Amino acid sequence: MEIKEAVAKLKENQKLLNAYWHAMGVMYYDFDTVAPKNAVTGFSDTMATLSEITYKLSVNEENFALLDLLTEHASELDEITRREVEEAQKGLKLLRNIPMDEYVEYQRIQSEANSVWHEAKVKSDYPMFEPLLKKLVEYNIRFAKYAAPEMDPYDYWLNEFEEGFTQDVLDRYFEKVKAALVPLIHRIGEKPQPEADFLHKDYPVFKQRELSDYLMEVMGIDRDDCAIGETEHPFTTGFNKHDMRITTHYYENALESSMYSVIHEGGHATYEMGNCDELIGSPLAGGASCGMHESQSRFYENIIGRSKAFVELVFPRIKELFPEQLEGVDAEMFYKAVNRAEPSLIRTEADELTYSLHVLVRYEIEKKLMHGELDTKDVPAEWNRLYKEYLGVDVPCAKEGCLQDSHWSGGSFGYFPSYSLGSAYGAQILHAMKKEMDPDALVRAGEMEKVTLWLREHIHKYGGIKKPAELLRICCGEDFDPEYYIKYLTDKFSELYGL
Amino acid sequence: MEIKEAVAKLKENQKLLNAYWHAMGVMYYDFDTVAPKNAVTGFSDTMATLSEITYKLSVNEENFALLDLLTEHASELDEITRREVEEAQKGLKLLRNIPMDEYVEYQRIQSEANSVWHEAKVKSDYPMFEPLLKKLVEYNIRFAKYAAPEMDPYDYWLNEFEEGFTQDVLDRYFEKVKAALVPLIHRIGEKPQPEADFLHKDYPVFKQRELSDYLMEVMGIDRDDCAIGETEHPFTTGFNKHDMRITTHYYENALESSMYSVIHEGGHATYEMGNCDELIGSPLAGGASCGMHESQSRFYENIIGRSKAFVELVFPRIKELFPEQLEGVDAEMFYKAVNRAEPSLIRTEADELTYSLHVLVRYEIEKKLMHGELDTKDVPAEWNRLYKEYLGVDVPCAKEGCLQDSHWSGGSFGYFPSYSLGSAYGAQILHAMKKEMDPDALVRAGEMEKVTLWLREHIHKYGGIKKPAELLRICCGEDFDPEYYIKYLTDKFSELYGL
Repeated sequence: MEIKEAVAKLKENQKLLNAYWHAMGVMYYDFDTVAPKNAVTGFSDTMATLSEITYKLSVNEENFALLDLLTEHASELDEITRREVEEAQKGLKLLRNIPMDEYVEYQRIQSEANSVWHEAKVKSDYPMFEPLLKKLVEYNIRFAKYAAPEMDPYDYWLNEFEEGFTQDVLDRYFEKVKAALVPLIHRIGEKPQPEADFLHKDYPVFKQRELSDYLMEVMGIDRDDCAIGETEHPFTTGFNKHDMRITTHYYENALESSMYSVIHEGGHATYEMGNCDELIGSPLAGGASCGMHESQSRFYENIIGRSKAFVELVFPRIKELFPEQLEGVDAEMFYKAVNRAEPSLIRTEADELTYSLHVLVRYEIEKKLMHGELDTKDVPAEWNRLYKEYLGVDVPCAKEGCLQDSHWSGGSFGYFPSYSLGSAYGAQILHAMKKEMDPDALVRAGEMEKVTLWLREHIHKYGGIKKPAELLRICCGEDFDPEYYIKYLTDKFSELYGL
Repeated sequence: MEIKEAVAKLKENQKLLNAYWHAMGVMYYDFDTVAPKNAVTGFSDTMATLSEITYKLSVNEENFALLDLLTEHASELDEITRREVEEAQKGLKLLRNIPMDEYVEYQRIQSEANSVWHEAKVKSDYPMFEPLLKKLVEYNIRFAKYAAPEMDPYDYWLNEFEEGFTQDVLDRYFEKVKAALVPLIHRIGEKPQPEADFLHKDYPVFKQRELSDYLMEVMGIDRDDCAIGETEHPFTTGFNKHDMRITTHYYENALESSMYSVIHEGGHATYEMGNCDELIGSPLAGGASCGMHESQSRFYENIIGRSKAFVELVFPRIKELFPEQLEGVDAEMFYKAVNRAEPSLIRTEADELTYSLHVLVRYEIEKKLMHGELDTKDVPAEWNRLYKEYLGVDVPCAKEGCLQDSHWSGGSFGYFPSYSLGSAYGAQILHAMKKEMDPDALVRAGEMEKVTLWLREHIHKYGGIKKPAELLRICCGEDFDPEYYIKYLTDKFSELYGL
């Protein structure tokens, strides 16, 4: 086959797969936001049928041969096509090396683990889930060896999720984070907390919906390209840069929750809406990695959204929407309330300062599990010990402890660090941005689009063309450096708590 | 191939096609209710790709051979399978007999006609649309001849939409309807109209949403099986009996509009939710025909929803939701207001009494077009003449005249009569129901579920297993008879207007 012909075939396959992903993505979004409860059976059946079709479209000898041919001739391809081939090869690496019967058995265990985990979490019954976790760990170690026999198994999985961020990088990263944040958190624990009760008054949902519209407007999100839906657990999905969907969840007694969900998810959407047009229809559309995606959502949520400048910009409108609830509250009080830092039990509800320590607990446990240094039976004890050590909190039950996240039940080990890396990337990006502009001044002046334009030019436009480590070098002119993150948190929270 | 094997193959094909229809259905629903505006390009691309795949899954020699084999052995099949084969054959009859190049050219013209019609409607410019309408008429005459050379072309299309209801039946039907309703409408025109201004006060959308929830509850619609969305033009769709979607459109200054949309679309959904379980995943799930589907939606909307009993049941809650807007209004006034009968220009906004005359205009024009007795150039003049004759109204422009509906631009001729037949079926079904129960008394007592149970037992459970004419015989014990419809309308509106 000629290379030109092979490229055409690759693009044709991508177009076809894209149609399936699009349809399945819309089905998933629909299921999670508006479908009636009993849609579940029909939804699962159709998703299973379509998944099988897409699986067969990728996992077949003809496609392997096509990708191998293109890999051999990588130097003759344009950058986007070369990266598409690389990513396709990466995605198939595991599937090409696992014995089929093990893969099928693993899928079965994964599905069982997911449903058992749901029940175990409700009952806070870790022993119920433990045998399945044990199997998932064993499979993940074995699969890593099939895919990359030369690599440490945990490094293999870490590299899958955040290329270039293996244990040598992460060990140093978390060591620094721990050394700086644990004492800082302890010192803050001795200080009085700001008043925040007003965030928990009665905030009617139809008014909160107006606030969401306003926040998306402030962020410069074009509603013709991005819709907002409502769901139990907020997420963002997109089918192309002109069809993004963010979601939120309104709690009548928690204004902050949806407000910062909208800004966070709006950050994810802004990333993909900023992709260059060449990526429309390409599997490289989206972000460079989970961590880089999270860097943008958390940049908007925390670095911008929880800055004094942003709060001062939006507070007048918030007060206009909720005059009674916010009587006697000013922007300064609001700013302090949404920046309360307090050790807690649940990662997804953690504040900006303590968040990475929640991740560190998971990283340390995963590392030991992947190296056979921790028996799955001992996970709760280790979990609780680490929460006490890093965050100073006592974990009362497995539901609020090691059963809280769904990741392990889905067979996912090595994903968590990207959550923390996202925050660290964000601080480093902020530092680079500040060399060229003053984001606080721009936000205060209502010119947030200039901040977004900078991010688009330095990050968003690339989508998945660049890998995260490379993208960071392009954007910041240097390698990943956690010091920016530590300095950012130390400065911000020292000032907030008058240390 | 063994018959058993052939049936298994048929069911497998159906399952696969069902997955695609499900996904495309959800995409369509999503696009119409929540997708951002600029989703259109990606949506169209993916729908085109998936449509092509489903087309190829049905239109291929292997499938033709399978269906022909099963048709030969129809007597050995169970009823559902036999009807599935029949419907599949019916759906393919045209495609198997049209030369491929003509089909492709027709698709192109259809697509062009649709976009030209949109523009022509906005500009009220019929001559702009006329050349395309001419081509569509010619193709439809030719295609009917390919599919059924022995049939009158208009009969072919009518029979496609509403099996058994060809011109001999419809001519007699419309003759009776015209003879009875035209004078009745003229007499009502001399009577004073009831007060209805209160329906056009300011009705906030978030309160109307509460009303929708209440109406669905009154109708006994299980929200775990049926969601409600918002769209420009309300419709109902469903992916199986446990995943139905109705839609509505809220106008701040028109309470009646969404209220009766919800009841109408709720009727469509109730029909499909009442299918027997054997039809889950079968292409026979749904209704017997468009007309039969419309009979159920209009039964709930008009026969039940605009009855005195129903208005008396729901009015207290409506008044509770809108106490200021409805100050001084009682149930009797509300009942009269939602039953105003007044000749108008737009079919979709017509009242229960005049509705069928709008359909009749279209039927007469289609008949002449399909027989070459009316030049497409003369459609507006004929349209306007008939509106004047039947409804006594002067059509001011093509936008509010012959360009108002999308059907012809989509190449659809012969669909309109089913809208009117639906109402007529409904009145006949009401007559049959009244032999066994008193629906007014049940509604008044808040026992509407008993009405629905009766309809489920006599109509809904069959889905598409029975054809409309046969279903009517099962349900009513006699053939279709328009006298019930005429009597129902005459009695109701004579009483309302004191004739």
